[in-house]
Amino acid sequence: MTDYPPIGEQLDDLEAAREEGRRKMEWAAQHMPICTRLREEYEEEQPLEGQRIGMAMHVEAKTAILVETLAEAGAEVAVTGCNPLSTHDDVSAALDSHDSITSYAKRGVDDEEYYQAIEAVISHEPTVTVDDGMDMIAAIHEDHPELIEGILGGCEETTTGVHRLRAMDADGALEYPVFAVNDTPMKRLFDNVHGTGESSLASIAMTTNLSWAGKNVVVAGYGYCGKGVAKKAAGQNANVIVTEVEPRRALEAHMEGYDVLPMAEAAEVGDVFLTTTGNRDVIVEEHFPEMKDGVLLANAGHFDIEIDLEALDDLATERYEARDGVEAYVMDDGRRLNVVAEGRLVNLAAPVALGHPVEVMDQSFGVQAACVRELVESKAYGPGVHDVPDELDKEIAEIKLEADGVSIDSLTDTQTEYMGSWEHGT
Amino acid sequence: MTDYPPIGEQLDDLEAAREEGRRKMEWAAQHMPICTRLREEYEEEQPLEGQRIGMAMHVEAKTAILVETLAEAGAEVAVTGCNPLSTHDDVSAALDSHDSITSYAKRGVDDEEYYQAIEAVISHEPTVTVDDGMDMIAAIHEDHPELIEGILGGCEETTTGVHRLRAMDADGALEYPVFAVNDTPMKRLFDNVHGTGESSLASIAMTTNLSWAGKNVVVAGYGYCGKGVAKKAAGQNANVIVTEVEPRRALEAHMEGYDVLPMAEAAEVGDVFLTTTGNRDVIVEEHFPEMKDGVLLANAGHFDIEIDLEALDDLATERYEARDGVEAYVMDDGRRLNVVAEGRLVNLAAPVALGHPVEVMDQSFGVQAACVRELVESKAYGPGVHDVPDELDKEIAEIKLEADGVSIDSLTDTQTEYMGSWEHGT
Amino acid sequence: MTDYPPIGEQLDDLEAAREEGRRKMEWAAQHMPICTRLREEYEEEQPLEGQRIGMAMHVEAKTAILVETLAEAGAEVAVTGCNPLSTHDDVSAALDSHDSITSYAKRGVDDEEYYQAIEAVISHEPTVTVDDGMDMIAAIHEDHPELIEGILGGCEETTTGVHRLRAMDADGALEYPVFAVNDTPMKRLFDNVHGTGESSLASIAMTTNLSWAGKNVVVAGYGYCGKGVAKKAAGQNANVIVTEVEPRRALEAHMEGYDVLPMAEAAEVGDVFLTTTGNRDVIVEEHFPEMKDGVLLANAGHFDIEIDLEALDDLATERYEARDGVEAYVMDDGRRLNVVAEGRLVNLAAPVALGHPVEVMDQSFGVQAACVRELVESKAYGPGVHDVPDELDKEIAEIKLEADGVSIDSLTDTQTEYMGSWEHGT
Amino acid sequence: MTDYPPIGEQLDDLEAAREEGRRKMEWAAQHMPICTRLREEYEEEQPLEGQRIGMAMHVEAKTAILVETLAEAGAEVAVTGCNPLSTHDDVSAALDSHDSITSYAKRGVDDEEYYQAIEAVISHEPTVTVDDGMDMIAAIHEDHPELIEGILGGCEETTTGVHRLRAMDADGALEYPVFAVNDTPMKRLFDNVHGTGESSLASIAMTTNLSWAGKNVVVAGYGYCGKGVAKKAAGQNANVIVTEVEPRRALEAHMEGYDVLPMAEAAEVGDVFLTTTGNRDVIVEEHFPEMKDGVLLANAGHFDIEIDLEALDDLATERYEARDGVEAYVMDDGRRLNVVAEGRLVNLAAPVALGHPVEVMDQSFGVQAACVRELVESKAYGPGVHDVPDELDKEIAEIKLEADGVSIDSLTDTQTEYMGSWEHGT
Repeated sequence: MTDYPPIGEQLDDLEAAREEGRRKMEWAAQHMPICTRLREEYEEEQPLEGQRIGMAMHVEAKTAILVETLAEAGAEVAVTGCNPLSTHDDVSAALDSHDSITSYAKRGVDDEEYYQAIEAVISHEPTVTVDDGMDMIAAIHEDHPELIEGILGGCEETTTGVHRLRAMDADGALEYPVFAVNDTPMKRLFDNVHGTGESSLASIAMTTNLSWAGKNVVVAGYGYCGKGVAKKAAGQNANVIVTEVEPRRALEAHMEGYDVLPMAEAAEVGDVFLTTTGNRDVIVEEHFPEMKDGVLLANAGHFDIEIDLEALDDLATERYEARDGVEAYVMDDGRRLNVVAEGRLVNLAAPVALGHPVEVMDQSFGVQAACVRELVESKAYGPGVHDVPDELDKEIAEIKLEADGVSIDSLTDTQTEYMGSWEHGT
Repeated sequence: MTDYPPIGEQLDDLEAAREEGRRKMEWAAQHMPICTRLREEYEEEQPLEGQRIGMAMHVEAKTAILVETLAEAGAEVAVTGCNPLSTHDDVSAALDSHDSITSYAKRGVDDEEYYQAIEAVISHEPTVTVDDGMDMIAAIHEDHPELIEGILGGCEETTTGVHRLRAMDADGALEYPVFAVNDTPMKRLFDNVHGTGESSLASIAMTTNLSWAGKNVVVAGYGYCGKGVAKKAAGQNANVIVTEVEPRRALEAHMEGYDVLPMAEAAEVGDVFLTTTGNRDVIVEEHFPEMKDGVLLANAGHFDIEIDLEALDDLATERYEARDGVEAYVMDDGRRLNVVAEGRLVNLAAPVALGHPVEVMDQSFGVQAACVRELVESKAYGPGVHDVPDELDKEIAEIKLEADGVSIDSLTDTQTEYMGSWEHGT
Repeated sequence: MTDYPPIGEQLDDLEAAREEGRRKMEWAAQHMPICTRLREEYEEEQPLEGQRIGMAMHVEAKTAILVETLAEAGAEVAVTGCNPLSTHDDVSAALDSHDSITSYAKRGVDDEEYYQAIEAVISHEPTVTVDDGMDMIAAIHEDHPELIEGILGGCEETTTGVHRLRAMDADGALEYPVFAVNDTPMKRLFDNVHGTGESSLASIAMTTNLSWAGKNVVVAGYGYCGKGVAKKAAGQNANVIVTEVEPRRALEAHMEGYDVLPMAEAAEVGDVFLTTTGNRDVIVEEHFPEMKDGVLLANAGHFDIEIDLEALDDLATERYEARDGVEAYVMDDGRRLNVVAEGRLVNLAAPVALGHPVEVMDQSFGVQAACVRELVESKAYGPGVHDVPDELDKEIAEIKLEADGVSIDSLTDTQTEYMGSWEHGT
Repeated sequence: MTDYPPIGEQLDDLEAAREEGRRKMEWAAQHMPICTRLREEYEEEQPLEGQRIGMAMHVEAKTAILVETLAEAGAEVAVTGCNPLSTHDDVSAALDSHDSITSYAKRGVDDEEYYQAIEAVISHEPTVTVDDGMDMIAAIHEDHPELIEGILGGCEETTTGVHRLRAMDADGALEYPVFAVNDTPMKRLFDNVHGTGESSLASIAMTTNLSWAGKNVVVAGYGYCGKGVAKKAAGQNANVIVTEVEPRRALEAHMEGYDVLPMAEAAEVGDVFLTTTGNRDVIVEEHFPEMKDGVLLANAGHFDIEIDLEALDDLATERYEARDGVEAYVMDDGRRLNVVAEGRLVNLAAPVALGHPVEVMDQSFGVQAACVRELVESKAYGPGVHDVPDELDKEIAEIKLEADGVSIDSLTDTQTEYMGSWEHGT
């Protein structure tokens, strides 16, 4: 154990914090039927008994339900944040008050403390790691290789993390099995399409007091996130314009009935611009002079480099906070270009933003919990990045359907046989 | 003049308030092209020169643009609030600093002050009144009948106000002309359908952190507001269920592809309930026991009597604040029914709510400004409630289209003649 | 009685024709629950006993169900066509074989026979008339004024007919009461929006073998028909472009998320053009040179004068039948502009077209049947055009809801009182 | 060469047939910009010079454009039908009149002639085969193994064909390379979603004269075809109900806002049933007794075994042709269940059906043409089933975008590098 204290030893009004944290978690749990159901099952079966789980996640109400689920399944859990600004101290305190959970997450810590907290989690000698950006896996591989032998495996939630892990894997540097939770259909379809789509648009509407009806909404990128944003914006009666670099995705958008334009042309007609590409330099110097007065610029992609704010700042003669969460850049001809949430992920960084909806996190975290169990029970996975097994992903879908009161059919033997024989050419 | 002081004499840090108020107004103005255009025109033409306008409105940024527009048109304007909780003091202060505007609106005043402020406005001896709930018209008719002779007319913004004015008119008690601004197509179609629809759903999403996709959303009432809520919810991938009492509206919803059910059946399957009827007792005692755990109950209609909260409270064994803006009522079987914003208008009363979007208020207020001008210039209207002249409503539509860069066709002489001759049977 | 023979005396293989006619009627009846329900009720109650009904309608399967319903209600019915090309002889024969029905409708008759058939109907001395284009009313007023005294009233189905009747009425020339069936919400919302929308698009698709996805579909006119076409085209993933002359309707289309353009600009980008204005000269000489190669031009409005085919023909260097129902006009630069169904109403005139869907005609004809009963039972209507009474329209909606298995709520006494008191200003 | 004569030697009025065939092809070509563009390019470059191509396809206008494209590229083409009922003799004659094309396809041939025609094609000793159901590949492998050495490869269009080829491949029995054209994104997304969706619904509407608005439309299966049918039905204001056996697809449908039910429950509420599963026994004996009077049953999947018509026939007390293309099965309680197009693929087998829309076939056939060229030019593919190279699929998308006037962005070097570095973990 390190000397870095858990949050329970750092807060002043601990009891009040715990209570508020529990209130937030109760709300989340109420709308997380998958995790709730797994928790009941795991509490009964104790599949994680004897395991120690080390986690680095956004410590807020939704994640806390996952943490608790793992603890109730019999594990000792040590957790810290994966971003110093996303931690809710009250939720962290509520978690830390659980007998089997130690939480080191604290909002606003400096770099040194941030890494001390990770070290503190590692000092618990985890047998399983759960990451949201691979901080834990990286620290163990770099600084604590002696622990690797005792580790059954890990889970990684993010696109970025999975990309990096695949690179490590390709280099032969990844020394234990990790599930690419990000890549399952259960996450991509729901988290990206519905989660990002709805929460980004609602965050912008409630930051600006503006309406979508009749607006030209330029969606940069037509991957899963872009599809979600486009679909939900059209569903609010916006006129959607898509920009793309991949011809088949562009064609998909075109056949969906959207306008598809290069950004240089979209810049002239757009009222709102939303980047979702995961790339950099999507809206740049040449585009700003073409834009109309009063446009909104926002990002629903990943990093805050999709819109080139430095170039915009250079072009601007003045800059002022037009509203909480909206910075207006005034051009020399008087046009005002309004950047929402500093071009950072708008559904997280806008002042009113709440991150992804509870229900979609329930699906991701349900997969996470099932993956941890799989690592513990199967012990069959070698070092490297592994896709989440199809069966496990389906199981989570079944739980969600049941929770929402939806029944479905199943194949008869004759049907299964027919599909099989089809495969075999008869 | 009364002794009741304008806001400029009531605030401590006046300069800061004015600046913040102006910042809010600038944002609104940036997205109110109709009022902006009328302001430019009126500034030039001074059609309201010599008029005194008395207003009782929600004094916040959007309304302030209307107030300023009237002042720039040459009028002296005195204004106060129409609801003690909707005033933004900073906006009120910014208005009051205008040479031709006196603002008495102050947030949180008590009943006595509220009516003193109305009296203060009346003491300016208005020649035109502008109301949002007919407070001004009522006070003048009841307590200052001597002023009526000098009044050219009034405008009324709300459904409620217009209903009451029509009743006064029917009783022969309305002694000057009033335009029913609420009833124009320009207001109904856009304000109710798009404005209420979008802002209600976004307010709920950002209060609860929940998602619409796959939810059973019960919309009570399929008038203009109900249509807007249903359409926008379906556009976010909700499964919409409509309840109605009028068979043709019910059939319209059914032919749109929505499920139509009596509330007793909808109660069993709904995940979210949104009332939009303008009536009382829409969700009542008998419905609560049928509801699922975790449902949301909200109102987008008018008063907070659409959901019978007293009955709900009687049924509940416990009540707690589940989130800011959400009160959970716990039933004896453990189910939690979550009431959003105390069952008051959710797009105004939720903690994050911002009221109607800026753009739809621009349309309503554009009609208001044009009506005031019409009253002043025409002088042809007798006492009673008058529909907004079609031509005037169209003019506002034309300005909006132009502002949004939309051009349209016009009839050729041959076409006009053809349509006319059609009317005459040839 | 005139000498003009009913269809039963004109056909060769009468029995086969009757059987085929009955088969068509059975299909229609199967999907006309409103008329079926009214027929059962009327058969029992015989409200039309002793009446003689003269009708001029499109004699095909759907109308035949209305004719039969009136006969089963106790009336003697004489019927002829309202357009020589829309009659199905087999259906006419099937009707004529009914004891209380005489049908004079025959496909392809010449002008003389057409009017002889109308005279033949009038020779039955009708007490009630039912028109689809006011042929019967006109003939009686002009040539048989002596019958007017004995006539209780009439019904008129079409927009055109109602327009002309209102003109007659304004001139004091209409001498008996006529219900404007066309103008009820039950007809406008469903017939125009859903009926015209769906059947026009399906007729075009099945005439051309083309797809809607990703097409620029220009809808001229945004009245009820235009709204229907636009909505259904967008629902097939077309990119909808609206042209309009009325600014509020244009704004409505714009706020719905459609592109709104003048026809001169729409001409350059459209892939398919559909006129729905009811006016003339909507697509004219100046537009054709701007159009892309391979465009489709079709009309879902009223007459075949919305697209100026003469001008197009003058511009064309060649003309050929590109497909059944599609005429290609070749421009001097080689572009081919394809006119569908000769610019006549596409859901009637295309080779595969079947007219309006059965279900929407059921609604219109249900209103017709109820109006005939109302004329007979009330006897309270004076000469002139009358709106269909609200209650009657609602009743038909209720029958349709019941037939589709949809239940709705009704107002409690408290609610009725609340809405009433609201009206009275308390 | 065999003795089986090409169509040019079999028809009586050859010239008229050729003309009509050419007219049909001209219409198709007008709306097939991809094939048209490739034809121009290939005509110039002659990439297939010296090749002999043997094809077994549906010989109708759209396919004919592909055949011609390959011939214009320098190849000798011999073609026959892949189904005796899908051949258009006039199109076949028009093809056969081309110098480099011999067409043996004739409508309505018996089994013996059908296989003689395949032999006739094979007698041309093809160097490349193009199949729509692998008839050609199978015949060559079984009866003409001596030709395999000279064959560069083949293309297969259908799901069924590709499945069987993969089985052959797995057994080591496939002796030359074959491209799985069916499996490209360009085919799946557009052909299945938009093509099947739109054409199935339009075929049903124009066969039955019924409307979609307000109908409960049960879509069995939520794969690509099911998604298309559901989306387009919802876009016509149907209330969509999905049945599924795979939980993740069921969840996808649920989150889209559709009702998801087991077939046993859907049977009770559906108005229209459309199977799209590719499996057998989807609607069976137990479901028919639950259905409402007047329902429609249709298939948009593959074979006519999705609806168990034998069981339906056993249950029926009577059967009659309710309309062209609609067979009514009368149950003993009088309910009528209406089977459209005998439960065969409704967009092909309904009397008015035209198959897939021209534009989607343009995309599939564009991929086909490019694949043939790739086989000829690359010569790098070993025996077995091969995915269509990504680059080639993209190229077709680019041509389509260009033809539709759509421009898109391309990655800058910095962006490409950024995406690359991301992949490598930096």
